[in-house]
Amino acid sequence: MKLRFYNGLVLTAEDMEIRSGEVRTNGDTITYVGAEKDTDGEKFDREIDLHGNLIMPSFKNAHTHSAMVFLRSYADDMPLHDWLFRQVFPMEDKLAPEDVYIFTKLAALEYFSGGTTACFDMYFYPEYIAKAGIDAGLRTVLCGSVSGGDDKADYDSALSRLEEYYNKFNGSDPLISFKIGFHAEYTTHISILKGIAELAKKYRQPVYTHNSETESEVRECIGRHGKTPTALMEELGMFEYGGGGFHCVYLTDDDMEIFRRHGAWVITNPCSNCKLASGIAPLAEMREKGIGLAIGTDGAASNNALDMFREMYLASTLQKIRMNDASAMPADAVLEMAVKGSALAMGLDRCDVLAAGKKADMTVIDLDMPNMQPLHNIVKNIVFAGNKTNVRMTVSAGKIVYENGTFPTLDAEKIFAEANAAVKALMNR
Amino acid sequence: MKLRFYNGLVLTAEDMEIRSGEVRTNGDTITYVGAEKDTDGEKFDREIDLHGNLIMPSFKNAHTHSAMVFLRSYADDMPLHDWLFRQVFPMEDKLAPEDVYIFTKLAALEYFSGGTTACFDMYFYPEYIAKAGIDAGLRTVLCGSVSGGDDKADYDSALSRLEEYYNKFNGSDPLISFKIGFHAEYTTHISILKGIAELAKKYRQPVYTHNSETESEVRECIGRHGKTPTALMEELGMFEYGGGGFHCVYLTDDDMEIFRRHGAWVITNPCSNCKLASGIAPLAEMREKGIGLAIGTDGAASNNALDMFREMYLASTLQKIRMNDASAMPADAVLEMAVKGSALAMGLDRCDVLAAGKKADMTVIDLDMPNMQPLHNIVKNIVFAGNKTNVRMTVSAGKIVYENGTFPTLDAEKIFAEANAAVKALMNR
Repeated sequence: MKLRFYNGLVLTAEDMEIRSGEVRTNGDTITYVGAEKDTDGEKFDREIDLHGNLIMPSFKNAHTHSAMVFLRSYADDMPLHDWLFRQVFPMEDKLAPEDVYIFTKLAALEYFSGGTTACFDMYFYPEYIAKAGIDAGLRTVLCGSVSGGDDKADYDSALSRLEEYYNKFNGSDPLISFKIGFHAEYTTHISILKGIAELAKKYRQPVYTHNSETESEVRECIGRHGKTPTALMEELGMFEYGGGGFHCVYLTDDDMEIFRRHGAWVITNPCSNCKLASGIAPLAEMREKGIGLAIGTDGAASNNALDMFREMYLASTLQKIRMNDASAMPADAVLEMAVKGSALAMGLDRCDVLAAGKKADMTVIDLDMPNMQPLHNIVKNIVFAGNKTNVRMTVSAGKIVYENGTFPTLDAEKIFAEANAAVKALMNR
Repeated sequence: MKLRFYNGLVLTAEDMEIRSGEVRTNGDTITYVGAEKDTDGEKFDREIDLHGNLIMPSFKNAHTHSAMVFLRSYADDMPLHDWLFRQVFPMEDKLAPEDVYIFTKLAALEYFSGGTTACFDMYFYPEYIAKAGIDAGLRTVLCGSVSGGDDKADYDSALSRLEEYYNKFNGSDPLISFKIGFHAEYTTHISILKGIAELAKKYRQPVYTHNSETESEVRECIGRHGKTPTALMEELGMFEYGGGGFHCVYLTDDDMEIFRRHGAWVITNPCSNCKLASGIAPLAEMREKGIGLAIGTDGAASNNALDMFREMYLASTLQKIRMNDASAMPADAVLEMAVKGSALAMGLDRCDVLAAGKKADMTVIDLDMPNMQPLHNIVKNIVFAGNKTNVRMTVSAGKIVYENGTFPTLDAEKIFAEANAAVKALMNR
């Protein structure tokens, strides 16, 4: 498939300037970004007139549990502990691998309809997440989700499976990769953490985990190990090849310095942190210190949408309210986090910006709508006034996966029906 | 125009239950809400198959400055004082009446595309706001915006104009009404405030104003008058017939008791308060005390969208984070605020719920979209996962003003072009 997008505006995200121009693709790769020029007889499968609208890199969702869409609005407005232990965990125990497949496909529809083409997904049954990603055309970075207790069996199964996944998924498909990761310090015994650190060193790989999402999590880690989760991870050598933390609401100054020193990424989830009453991550300070920032939605059970527009709005405005400073965390920094920072944090290969040789992961933003008028500042319009109605088209690995409310490559009605049948069966299991 | 909506779900907002049923209208009025029944040969202009989707009362935006869309993304990410005094006020000084007309029409498109059919609008040139409302089919409650200093001329012009507007606009058109109001205590001399209180008593009317939006506003009022804005208003007798406060971020316990005692409405603007770093209003405590709550967007210059979905999300989730309690401010309370509370707060006549004899101000929510699946709880889906893509249709005073991305009664392209031309002319003025 060769595509040409012309007569529009281009935000490459190499910088945050917007210029007139065009974009061309061949297969899953961008072949040209620049001023509009003659096609010289070159044939395209489609030449798409942007009518002055904007083409830009797609959003990448740098932390999610896609399949958790099955718990969307199942349990809300309740204390965190009840939500997790009485509602979420018992339902997750019933999940079959095929459920994860269909729910992940349902999530893919939601991603595409919001201009998102990739996700960093930590959940059960990674084979089924990967299959859903391949079948849906969703670029998927699987994140190791090791957890476990203090016995040899836990250790062996956790570590051997992690290494097996690492070798199995990387290189298996252009859309799929796997990163070493564990669920969280508070669910993983120190012996297993040490094993993960060894594995990361063996493969010279970064390590990812839920980190300092809640105050109690940090307090309890200090109680167990005399240090914060971040300091513990550094001591174990887990940051030697970078990595990242999901949430990072309660990083100390020393923790931030560790992230900075190792080039580790903070992957923020403002909607989930807000809805679960976890807190507001100190993103403004992190940015000041030069820490790399990325954005994710977390799972739909705690958000309840997989919508990068809403994440961007909160990533900026919650900083303003937290700092009591309306100038905190400007729009261009947040948009850059959502399209470029997230791609880099997940270790995606050439998905960060629009340029020749980069992957054709893009979205077309409709500016010809009431909430985008007038056009004083398009980047601010996207971050502060934009929403999913402005997504006109989503291109994932060179394929048009969403256009004007339709999914050309997927049967949405069938996925809805299968997902609802799976939810019903699961409820009765 | 007679409409029939069938084969769907109905949320009347008389309670927050969702039931199968149908809705019928004749002119601007609802004639039937209930179980699906035979039409007995009755003819409708359109019979609309909802295909299982939801019809519910439209959103009402209980505090806005619609025409401020012209400053959307013009100045953001800057300190509040600079934003207001260096950017907003100088631009507003250049506004011509015709500008307010076209910008208000632009805002109407945004309202309709998001399921909103009415606004409580405080801005310059009310004749032109009213004309835009009538021409666009937007139910508009004009709010008096009196302000002024300590001399007789100010007093006379403010008070006489307020009374003139009150008598001129009320009863002038079914879509238009006018409420007594002033800009804020901090912009209005006490002599004028006293005059407004007299006028309110004369006409037995409620009074509305910006109230306790910022900490400094309250502090300075105490410095001037020895009491909070709310206590001052009560002392002046302004709450005798109810009324309401916009923002109400910094109400004291005594202030809340005054609101409760007089049945006055708190009209919250969570996005604006967040983006301008004003603070988070204590809505959970207000609800606990039984104070009536309504929601508005404020103007697009400080938000930057006129999107009741985003307001609802923040009205709930900011309470959770503020109270450190994930169960604070549940979804059904927030949805009720946005459709019913707002209608009552603005004094709209029969626009609060779906029932025979009520006004046909409604919206159709598309549930057959990825972010609404599965259907564990539709109300929570709307508040926590919903966005403007879910608005399939908007009906204002019995007319379909938005349907599937189009505006059947308005020429959106023409309004965009005129608004952009007006912005350009204004910039060069």
